[in-house]
Amino acid sequence: MSRKYRVGILGATGMVGQRFIQLLVDHPQFEVSAVAASDRSQGKNYGEACTWRLSGKMPALVRALPIQAPAPPLDCELVFSSLPGEIARETEASFAAAGYPVISNSSAFRMDEDVPLLIPEVNHAHLGLLEGQKTKYSGRGFIVTNPNCSTIMLALALAPLHAAFGVEATIATTLQALSGAGYPGVASLDILDNVLPYISGEEEKIETETTKILGHFNNSRIELAPMAVSAQCHRVNVADGHMAAVRVKLARKATLDDVRESLRSFRSLPQELGLHSAPAAPIVVRDEQDRPQPKLDRDAGNGMTITVGRLNSDSVLDYRFVVLSHNTIRGAAGAAILNAELLIALGHL
Amino acid sequence: MSRKYRVGILGATGMVGQRFIQLLVDHPQFEVSAVAASDRSQGKNYGEACTWRLSGKMPALVRALPIQAPAPPLDCELVFSSLPGEIARETEASFAAAGYPVISNSSAFRMDEDVPLLIPEVNHAHLGLLEGQKTKYSGRGFIVTNPNCSTIMLALALAPLHAAFGVEATIATTLQALSGAGYPGVASLDILDNVLPYISGEEEKIETETTKILGHFNNSRIELAPMAVSAQCHRVNVADGHMAAVRVKLARKATLDDVRESLRSFRSLPQELGLHSAPAAPIVVRDEQDRPQPKLDRDAGNGMTITVGRLNSDSVLDYRFVVLSHNTIRGAAGAAILNAELLIALGHL
Amino acid sequence: MSRKYRVGILGATGMVGQRFIQLLVDHPQFEVSAVAASDRSQGKNYGEACTWRLSGKMPALVRALPIQAPAPPLDCELVFSSLPGEIARETEASFAAAGYPVISNSSAFRMDEDVPLLIPEVNHAHLGLLEGQKTKYSGRGFIVTNPNCSTIMLALALAPLHAAFGVEATIATTLQALSGAGYPGVASLDILDNVLPYISGEEEKIETETTKILGHFNNSRIELAPMAVSAQCHRVNVADGHMAAVRVKLARKATLDDVRESLRSFRSLPQELGLHSAPAAPIVVRDEQDRPQPKLDRDAGNGMTITVGRLNSDSVLDYRFVVLSHNTIRGAAGAAILNAELLIALGHL
Amino acid sequence: MSRKYRVGILGATGMVGQRFIQLLVDHPQFEVSAVAASDRSQGKNYGEACTWRLSGKMPALVRALPIQAPAPPLDCELVFSSLPGEIARETEASFAAAGYPVISNSSAFRMDEDVPLLIPEVNHAHLGLLEGQKTKYSGRGFIVTNPNCSTIMLALALAPLHAAFGVEATIATTLQALSGAGYPGVASLDILDNVLPYISGEEEKIETETTKILGHFNNSRIELAPMAVSAQCHRVNVADGHMAAVRVKLARKATLDDVRESLRSFRSLPQELGLHSAPAAPIVVRDEQDRPQPKLDRDAGNGMTITVGRLNSDSVLDYRFVVLSHNTIRGAAGAAILNAELLIALGHL
Repeated sequence: MSRKYRVGILGATGMVGQRFIQLLVDHPQFEVSAVAASDRSQGKNYGEACTWRLSGKMPALVRALPIQAPAPPLDCELVFSSLPGEIARETEASFAAAGYPVISNSSAFRMDEDVPLLIPEVNHAHLGLLEGQKTKYSGRGFIVTNPNCSTIMLALALAPLHAAFGVEATIATTLQALSGAGYPGVASLDILDNVLPYISGEEEKIETETTKILGHFNNSRIELAPMAVSAQCHRVNVADGHMAAVRVKLARKATLDDVRESLRSFRSLPQELGLHSAPAAPIVVRDEQDRPQPKLDRDAGNGMTITVGRLNSDSVLDYRFVVLSHNTIRGAAGAAILNAELLIALGHL
Repeated sequence: MSRKYRVGILGATGMVGQRFIQLLVDHPQFEVSAVAASDRSQGKNYGEACTWRLSGKMPALVRALPIQAPAPPLDCELVFSSLPGEIARETEASFAAAGYPVISNSSAFRMDEDVPLLIPEVNHAHLGLLEGQKTKYSGRGFIVTNPNCSTIMLALALAPLHAAFGVEATIATTLQALSGAGYPGVASLDILDNVLPYISGEEEKIETETTKILGHFNNSRIELAPMAVSAQCHRVNVADGHMAAVRVKLARKATLDDVRESLRSFRSLPQELGLHSAPAAPIVVRDEQDRPQPKLDRDAGNGMTITVGRLNSDSVLDYRFVVLSHNTIRGAAGAAILNAELLIALGHL
Repeated sequence: MSRKYRVGILGATGMVGQRFIQLLVDHPQFEVSAVAASDRSQGKNYGEACTWRLSGKMPALVRALPIQAPAPPLDCELVFSSLPGEIARETEASFAAAGYPVISNSSAFRMDEDVPLLIPEVNHAHLGLLEGQKTKYSGRGFIVTNPNCSTIMLALALAPLHAAFGVEATIATTLQALSGAGYPGVASLDILDNVLPYISGEEEKIETETTKILGHFNNSRIELAPMAVSAQCHRVNVADGHMAAVRVKLARKATLDDVRESLRSFRSLPQELGLHSAPAAPIVVRDEQDRPQPKLDRDAGNGMTITVGRLNSDSVLDYRFVVLSHNTIRGAAGAAILNAELLIALGHL
Repeated sequence: MSRKYRVGILGATGMVGQRFIQLLVDHPQFEVSAVAASDRSQGKNYGEACTWRLSGKMPALVRALPIQAPAPPLDCELVFSSLPGEIARETEASFAAAGYPVISNSSAFRMDEDVPLLIPEVNHAHLGLLEGQKTKYSGRGFIVTNPNCSTIMLALALAPLHAAFGVEATIATTLQALSGAGYPGVASLDILDNVLPYISGEEEKIETETTKILGHFNNSRIELAPMAVSAQCHRVNVADGHMAAVRVKLARKATLDDVRESLRSFRSLPQELGLHSAPAAPIVVRDEQDRPQPKLDRDAGNGMTITVGRLNSDSVLDYRFVVLSHNTIRGAAGAAILNAELLIALGHL
């Protein structure tokens, strides 16, 4: 691991772009060599063009980088992308076509049949899809995506239950943080003393992506998991940390202790490989009656551990719990970086 | 309606007690003649002892009323009660035993077999239970309760659906306002930039009370509605206005239009009788994709109309929607006052 | 007062524009006959183009009005303007030139030598400036402005003190509400768990406008009041209600009781004339140690009364107090409407 | 520095007590050997009795410590105290009398003539007062206090200006965080969409403590600094980070650059001595027009650096600026710990 991959960041000035930079600046395997953005900041240095919105100061290493247009060539070996949906599809395809591995947080390619929608702890087998991309893109080029910020915590929490007991149906009701809407995102007058019961496209993403992530790779394509998924999404006045109230219906009998133990003991390939961003435990189960809470639990495992609490039997489906995840770390930038670490470890980069 | 009933308020200094006063001060059928509280304010005038926490000024009419102990006799013909749970049971029983009708917002008697858990639009037939109370309490004394602040909006929204199509199961995930916890209630440090996934006793109340409210009075007792109810409750940083994301499973086939029309056209006895606090429509259905919102919709129908939005089919149960209600008006003080108005109209007072 | 003036609203879709409509819809002297906006909403009906952001529903009377470009001619006898600064100057001048009285909340003309910067209770004599506008604009055309939303409460609170004791210097530190920034205005991520110590142009406006408002009209022009004004401005997480902590240095001796009585007893021409929007008392002085508060006091006098509290002697200047005003009513739309009412009463319309 | 002092914490379960523990757990010079609290938690282990309200987990080292009564003897060499005002005076005196050095954050002794009110960067010479305490307390016992959480940032910002130019008068208007009120502290219903213009005792503390801190030790007592101090205090909806808008009048001429440079270059004894908690720069001056902000700047220098911004000339006094400090670190627990580190370095412990 002595040498570092030179990486470019597409959408570098946005909320997720800033998280990429924050998480990569001391990363042992990557160094940020190029930043690109689709907005009017092109031509300026990152330090001039970008207002740093995370705590602490903008990392010195990126201040002097010029902001470039999000188009190949970029001076890097791979790109992390958090471009807005509307331009992501064309741009990411053009990078893959130009031979760049694209590790994307955008929604554009998530449901494409030949694109892995990857959570390293859950469906690393789906990387088998990359074989099919070889004919499509030149050289080292390919596209790997991570799920929507709410889907990722739902799918991660369901993964051990699905493996052990089979999930037939799940109902998720989310309470999502402001940073999920980017910046400037939600107007303060809309959310002060209020809840917004609508997030554009979110319910559809959760309902479709979950079945792909938990689906089976049959050596040629992903067979969607045969489970019903229902999502209702709300925006609440929280800066970071998405929460979901979840019910699950299981195919096979399981006691409450079985369910708790299945979640608590879950470890997977990233933990075995000791990937840099992999938390010791992907899922922490808390037994206090008032956890998880966004303010107290979003930073668990440096934002890469999801926290499950209020686990109990349910009177309509079988079990219920509340799950919380840091939406711009495990739910976005951290997810993509963990994907890249796995790609290195498995020889795809 | 020319003469006014003289009413006493038990728990007059609390959040719901203040709402009682606010709603009663210009009421055509009631005048507040006595205020009682269990705290250290006894002996002082209401104006001295109570910090008014609602908008506007404390009504002049109650300023000079002395705060009395919550025990009979009180100078009034009936009492509205919002006493804390722990002392409500004994106190309310003593008032009923002393011949006072008790219109209670407390939880103490809600699930008692001979006590109506009343929503005038939903289960006015349950007032038949009062016959059974006659042997228990002296003179005019009886106890009528209203549901928990979250239950009331769930049961009211389900009522027309249950009547028309049969509700077999319902799943409610709530996002509840701060005023539901009373004052001082939730500490600001606990809720700023946060969500609390736990409200003591709330999930149990919703799951049990709903089946009683929607149950059938068979001329001697209430047969609980044979439906499964699942509740997960959260506190969010909103002053007033409880919200719930609801899924329902119906016994009989219904199209989305059937469901919408059933909710939208719902009218009941309070509307027919023209009760003072009865809203023109108990349920408003909004079709905008981002409604209901607490800040915008809690005051619909002077806080007595609940607002349903985001009505759609659901991939696990049959239909889903979001419902919002003003938790200290339709969910508490206004609910009790509407109960009292119905009791007058039906000759029980 | 039987006939109503037909009025046009420039900037009708913004936060202040909506307040204009809300306040005018049941006004005895005005009816909204035209709405104009500079944005992309032109050509649509108001009901289609505008998302109503105030509580309650959009008034039915304006739903069907077509949104027009903000340029004369408009079907109205006078215009209320809350256009953004950059286009207000040219637009308002063109309306005045076309013979329309312009009652403006915009900052464009406030400091112009021949334009009254009017608070009816404070400087109605400044309307003498209108004589000078007659040569400039055709027919009935003229421009009258109201002050910045923070200046107005400072100047109104200082007015009786200046008249009685002479204000030599004042220091104001503001805590301003979100609605002052319009919509979408402040991003939620910027203000949650935060304070912003900067509002563009605000400190300058307070420091300059105050001396004009409190200045003397010498029958040809305004002599600025010879007082030093210092302002530091902050944005806090409050929806409506600007607050300022104020110190004053007086030219003549006054006891604390003198100061309190001067504020409390202040009445002026709008009260004598019984103008529709004039509050019974322009200034309320509260003696509780924890008032004023935005949530509790912003609606005093239907938003037209300012509330002063925490009045006390000061160890650096002479006296200090905290003042609060509803920034979009007394501080904007209500201010302009009161100006128009005064103009009618004095025969200028 | 190889050996560690064994320290006791009085008021260990409160907000400041938890900060003490958080800051001491990895401290090179101290180890927490005893925890005491005045509440009902005595007899339980800290881990059982105390709900941890800071981010992250309760440090393992303190979980098993039994909570003792706040009275000597305690198993420790010195005590840090953050007891509530009413019991602090008697308790802290009893510890000093029993031979314990008392490093107190409480207000009880701050203004006592023989007690240093210490900010290590500002008035380390005041430790000369300890000589006078020797006759009062036995053995190693003495009392050293740190200022009120708002005073500390004001006095620290004024210190270099006072030294260089003489501060004749200062006016501070604060916007203070919720954590300053402890837990549960401010009720959420009181602060949501609101500002509270009153904090009990705060204005008096700022006005008196500042003149003592900036006063001169004449080898027998402190001569109060001859400056007028005016404070108006407000509570805003921010978790951590007190802000103050400050004006100053200087005795000697200084340009804006002089003032900026005086603040920016300020270093003092703690920096020279390299004390563990001493920030590299006690004061950071930011030139961006919208800084400091609580959310972005409270953690500067690990919460021990105060941030000054919006520095400019003032039209009433001479200069103005906004200053921000982490109120439970530099303003409380961190202040006391830095005091203790200085006491070690100077041989008082």
